[in-house]
Amino acid sequence: MSSANSSSEGRGARRSRRGRRAAPVAGSFEQKPFAQPRRGRNVPVDVASADELEAIHEASLRLLRDTGIAVLHDEAREMMERAGAEIGKDGIRVHFSPELIEQLISTVPAQFILHARNPAHNIVIGGDHLAFFMMASAPNASCMDKGRRTGNREDFQNFLRLSQQHTVLHGNGGYPCEPVDVHASVRHLDCVYDLLTLTDKSYCIYSLGAERNRDAIEMTRIGRGVSVDEFKTQPSVWTVINTNSPLQLDIPMMQGIIEMSSMGQPVVITPFTLSGAMAPVTIAGALVQQNAEALAGIAFSQIVNPGSPAVYGGFTSNVDMKSGSPAFGTPEYMKAQIIGGQLARRYNFPYRTSNVCAANTVDAQAAYESVFSLWGAINGGMNMLKHGAGWMEGGLCCSYEKTILDIDLLQMVTEFLAPLDFSEASLAVDTITEVGPGGHFFGTDHTQQRYKDAFYSPVLSDWRNFESWDEAGQPNAMQKANRIWKERLAAYEEPSLDVAIKEELDAFVSKRKTAGGVATDF
Amino acid sequence: MSSANSSSEGRGARRSRRGRRAAPVAGSFEQKPFAQPRRGRNVPVDVASADELEAIHEASLRLLRDTGIAVLHDEAREMMERAGAEIGKDGIRVHFSPELIEQLISTVPAQFILHARNPAHNIVIGGDHLAFFMMASAPNASCMDKGRRTGNREDFQNFLRLSQQHTVLHGNGGYPCEPVDVHASVRHLDCVYDLLTLTDKSYCIYSLGAERNRDAIEMTRIGRGVSVDEFKTQPSVWTVINTNSPLQLDIPMMQGIIEMSSMGQPVVITPFTLSGAMAPVTIAGALVQQNAEALAGIAFSQIVNPGSPAVYGGFTSNVDMKSGSPAFGTPEYMKAQIIGGQLARRYNFPYRTSNVCAANTVDAQAAYESVFSLWGAINGGMNMLKHGAGWMEGGLCCSYEKTILDIDLLQMVTEFLAPLDFSEASLAVDTITEVGPGGHFFGTDHTQQRYKDAFYSPVLSDWRNFESWDEAGQPNAMQKANRIWKERLAAYEEPSLDVAIKEELDAFVSKRKTAGGVATDF
Repeated sequence: MSSANSSSEGRGARRSRRGRRAAPVAGSFEQKPFAQPRRGRNVPVDVASADELEAIHEASLRLLRDTGIAVLHDEAREMMERAGAEIGKDGIRVHFSPELIEQLISTVPAQFILHARNPAHNIVIGGDHLAFFMMASAPNASCMDKGRRTGNREDFQNFLRLSQQHTVLHGNGGYPCEPVDVHASVRHLDCVYDLLTLTDKSYCIYSLGAERNRDAIEMTRIGRGVSVDEFKTQPSVWTVINTNSPLQLDIPMMQGIIEMSSMGQPVVITPFTLSGAMAPVTIAGALVQQNAEALAGIAFSQIVNPGSPAVYGGFTSNVDMKSGSPAFGTPEYMKAQIIGGQLARRYNFPYRTSNVCAANTVDAQAAYESVFSLWGAINGGMNMLKHGAGWMEGGLCCSYEKTILDIDLLQMVTEFLAPLDFSEASLAVDTITEVGPGGHFFGTDHTQQRYKDAFYSPVLSDWRNFESWDEAGQPNAMQKANRIWKERLAAYEEPSLDVAIKEELDAFVSKRKTAGGVATDF
Repeated sequence: MSSANSSSEGRGARRSRRGRRAAPVAGSFEQKPFAQPRRGRNVPVDVASADELEAIHEASLRLLRDTGIAVLHDEAREMMERAGAEIGKDGIRVHFSPELIEQLISTVPAQFILHARNPAHNIVIGGDHLAFFMMASAPNASCMDKGRRTGNREDFQNFLRLSQQHTVLHGNGGYPCEPVDVHASVRHLDCVYDLLTLTDKSYCIYSLGAERNRDAIEMTRIGRGVSVDEFKTQPSVWTVINTNSPLQLDIPMMQGIIEMSSMGQPVVITPFTLSGAMAPVTIAGALVQQNAEALAGIAFSQIVNPGSPAVYGGFTSNVDMKSGSPAFGTPEYMKAQIIGGQLARRYNFPYRTSNVCAANTVDAQAAYESVFSLWGAINGGMNMLKHGAGWMEGGLCCSYEKTILDIDLLQMVTEFLAPLDFSEASLAVDTITEVGPGGHFFGTDHTQQRYKDAFYSPVLSDWRNFESWDEAGQPNAMQKANRIWKERLAAYEEPSLDVAIKEELDAFVSKRKTAGGVATDF
């Protein structure tokens, strides 16, 4: 474990505006330099047999051929028809033959580089590369000090700062919480501006109408300082397309795919298939539906622009059949994550899943549901982990304390995936011989040379003995997380941004705001 | 998820002495019938390459040949010498050639049946069978109501009751907490008596001198109602041999192997190799040492009785290099678990690992360290999970609330491992077609026929929405666990025991107590 601070975050913290006092705080939070973990020998586990996987694949192709999928966007439907799909009698449903699906999805790149404003934060999506993203889309925010409140720009900005500061987060997955105090007509302008100025990592934008997509795409291009032609060949911003399950693709989604794919930007097609509600009560059935919907969306991205990046998103979980509440981090969720990964690999798509829980507080439940999600993600061959840090309450809240817990969990997963050293010196036969029966290793040169970096040093784990912990007032992990996020935020420093680019961004936002932003009906 | 109660525990609860009031409590806790999970398609993950694994194997054989292992028990040393090992100049160290080790360990059975007093609780150790055991050996016990106290017989008995009641626990791993209020001279008699009367599952005894081993073996034989000859062919009670790391096998351990293996009873050889303390600071080095020590112990069991059951135990973890405290459920622990499993499979041994944490309270830390341990155990190909429920504080305390949390975690892991149904009905193409775009699945026959048993119903997870949870006083998982263990204990009923067997046990204990038990020097 390196004490890092070779990262820009570490250096920034040391010359924080808060001066010398901030230094020990930032220094005490050990981080490795920004880097993506690789899967290495931790290969995905196949929970479905080859035959079972084929059964899901074939059932979903049958659905797309015989039952079809409702496409509410006229132009999209016409584009599908021109590509070879058939429109049903109702004029809404689109039927794809298995051959057409197979042909269309064959152009999806298995792997691509996602460019960030800061090239040091470019990441690879696909292959055996993993990328972790900050939580997105919570209507609420919470911390122990002020409790739970409606999402707002201050919390939104703070979560972006935390995301920027922590090297284990490779990008932003959207708005950590929704800043509802910013009017919807201009919210996307302010939010993308914050994403570009408070962080220099890549991010996800929302597909809420073509105009918002176009604004966000243009701001991203300005932020990166590249021409339109260059931008089209450099994935730099992504969007999530949640199908309107079951079997429905609505207008803003199709607009999103058209705007993003035509510009060469990645679309992450993620059916929201909650087993027992918007999908069959059987996990196999929910996966059939997920697969049909994902294939339809991905196929459309290739109709718009063959070869444009698309990602297979899995979000199948179950609902609590007593209350109807969505459940996350369950055994069923893990199975769906893993089989979702098998399906993505079958088609050679990058795979997206999530770090999710249904807990209302950062207790044992929040931790076990999240670690089960991470287990399913790793065994499932995940490439993009959405909602990597902060997610609570089935997505209804982003928590400051959970953000710190998740950062710690992601750092532990990263350490788990790091290859072990099996060199002769590491096998330590001479040292074991030197210490001999009944001896102790601490004093050996072998230990002294290595002990500082030998093991991962957790952020939250309290390893004091009971007596010391008791004397300290019996703090739990949530209380420790509460202290830490405040120390971390205090050490935040804005990443540098070229003055000319900042002026261009300011001018763009100002112009668009003067024009009234995007028309809303409220 | 079956509401079970087809198990004897369920029926017992319904006719509890506490009468009708206990019924809804027991009924509300859903359990599957007693059964071992199988690994199925969740095959172990190889974290070390074949070459890397060979490097550990060869380094450990080199250690056993050149450095040797100190054997403090004269007779054991002589038996090893007669079997072909060489005694070093100091007269204490035993050197094994690689060929001798390979030859001796070749007789270890890959799989065996562990017999319980109740044959319905017999289990398979080895292959793709998993067995979960109650926590063992804590010097302290704790609950939220009374806090932490020194281990005592009342808590000891309560933990055995909880273990007996829960079908996901397949046996007892020893004394959940040490009943220090029972004098050491007779403690083993009272404890084995409790293990035989309060539970009817298999269990582990302690190797603290030959006399205690012999008493416990004889009581187990009486409890099972079989002859000595039958007993010798039926593994019915096991012991853990923790080597005195580094490279030392002390007198009680060797006595334990002699007594147990000669009676055909399983020995679980588990080096206590904490990386940075009793083992090298490198995980690869700690594994070399673990492997050397485990091979020496297992080889000795085969010298005592070729073909007697032996299990490869992995317990390698790291210490906090700041404080020297042992750490558990860390990334390093997971890697050691998984490579330990690879080593066990290389030799075709059953593999034992643990569900452990270093937390002082049942908070997020307790949960994430435990789930990381379970992840390492499952990916590592574990057969025996020691300390399955209750473990806290690096083993210094058994907690009632943690017991319930772990039972829930083990049930979730079991559900995760259960094969999915991929039948045509489960793939649900007709149902998806019937519901159609934008519809909802809850009202369908497909859902109505399945929703009650469709998903695992967790014990602790609070899936209410924030508002309902807030109104209920914001309970956390630990508080819920506190309520549940009390409800569960209230529903406990002792398993039936043949009167003649009980009289024989009573007579044995009485006779041994009259004789003063085992002499102690205090």
